[in-house]
Amino acid sequence: MKVGFFQFDIVFGDVSHNLEKVAETLMAYDFDLLVLPELFTTGYLFSSRQEVFAHAERIPDGDTTRTLMNMAEHKQAYLVGGIAEVDDEGVYNTAVVIGPGGYIGKHRKRHLTKLERPLFDRGEDLDVFDLDGVTIGVLLCFDTWFPEACRMLTLKGAQIICSPANFGGPQSLDIGKARAIENKVYTITANRIGTEERHGVTAPFRGESQVIRYDGEILSRADENESVSVVEIDPEPARRKANLLGADLLEELACYEMYANKEE
Amino acid sequence: MKVGFFQFDIVFGDVSHNLEKVAETLMAYDFDLLVLPELFTTGYLFSSRQEVFAHAERIPDGDTTRTLMNMAEHKQAYLVGGIAEVDDEGVYNTAVVIGPGGYIGKHRKRHLTKLERPLFDRGEDLDVFDLDGVTIGVLLCFDTWFPEACRMLTLKGAQIICSPANFGGPQSLDIGKARAIENKVYTITANRIGTEERHGVTAPFRGESQVIRYDGEILSRADENESVSVVEIDPEPARRKANLLGADLLEELACYEMYANKEE
Repeated sequence: MKVGFFQFDIVFGDVSHNLEKVAETLMAYDFDLLVLPELFTTGYLFSSRQEVFAHAERIPDGDTTRTLMNMAEHKQAYLVGGIAEVDDEGVYNTAVVIGPGGYIGKHRKRHLTKLERPLFDRGEDLDVFDLDGVTIGVLLCFDTWFPEACRMLTLKGAQIICSPANFGGPQSLDIGKARAIENKVYTITANRIGTEERHGVTAPFRGESQVIRYDGEILSRADENESVSVVEIDPEPARRKANLLGADLLEELACYEMYANKEE
Repeated sequence: MKVGFFQFDIVFGDVSHNLEKVAETLMAYDFDLLVLPELFTTGYLFSSRQEVFAHAERIPDGDTTRTLMNMAEHKQAYLVGGIAEVDDEGVYNTAVVIGPGGYIGKHRKRHLTKLERPLFDRGEDLDVFDLDGVTIGVLLCFDTWFPEACRMLTLKGAQIICSPANFGGPQSLDIGKARAIENKVYTITANRIGTEERHGVTAPFRGESQVIRYDGEILSRADENESVSVVEIDPEPARRKANLLGADLLEELACYEMYANKEE
């Protein structure tokens, strides 16, 4: 299975430019699953909830999801990427999962950072998605800082965690490795590059998107420049949790009563 | 507060040699809290449960704990280190916490690796310990791979996680950083050096003991050689969880019902 990411500099507010950039770039690459950054069509530094509403799209009826569906059909591949979503109740920092057969599902960011809380509504669900026999979960940027979220997805069968991201600090790189190791899953992080400056706030993004194997090995890590990376992985080992350093993950978790009582 | 680790090559089965080594080395250093490796008096590659019984000690009545109590009183400091423990029910891979006033408590390894499961009984408890106003938790090596364990200690107030360790792979370094970041705690890992060869098994240990700040910054990391490292830290910021990248950790965890239902 060929998996990877595309990291690039997003032009704030210019959805059609950003979408075109993705469509044109990906045309040249062969992949089965490709992850795009968080809010990859709009940019990050919204000045108000009203501004989010002005840029947010319905899923799956909005332009972005429709365009991704065309791309996925054309490439016969899966795409995961972050967009601003609107529905009848609110606006969300959401990632869509799209396949050759169309729209598959979405994940709404559950853990919003300080800048995001006034702008977006919080997501509730942690779902996994079946990509023709391979199970993936999606966590958006700060979501990955919460091991509980990734554990839930792992217990639901996720073999690959896809993380569209917009981060500037180095911590998410370590987090991406730890999530892979402790859950025996692949993690794919697509972090944007460039710097946004809006309404007195400056947000530099570090790129350094990465694909991490289930044992923590870095299969690919970008620098701060625009780049596409696709690597071949075998998702099978990530299905078997009976050998985590010789221990059975599920057996080890039995001592945490919280999993017996868990709501989800 | 001056905290650190001592990593060294342990001579299998020679408790008095290993204890003397620690006593002599630490004499030259000034510290408030120092972490020693896992099973630092006995070595790691026991050939049988009987052999563990032959080397295991009562806590706090055994020689090792008594010697550490003398050292801690003399240095007016706290010590955390791993020993083989025996009680009326079984044998455990245990870490003791010792202070200037004597024995404080212990942590029995909860997550045993494949090599350890035939040898030791599993620990049950995850406790925190008060060191004159600073709260610490203890996790032994593979325990740290389970984010749930560190989270429990954090929710009980731990500001510093002390991890006596015996590892050979690189993963525990990433894990130590992630635990610090996601819990906003300091982590101190003391990993032994050298290679043990017994009954056809070879176990190389990588050293690379480290002190990690609550934001993931590496305050100190050793190489593969014997070393003592002591760094000055301020444990206060690790007490306040209301600002984890601008989010309130406890608020964010509220969506995980498992914490509401948790047993411990």
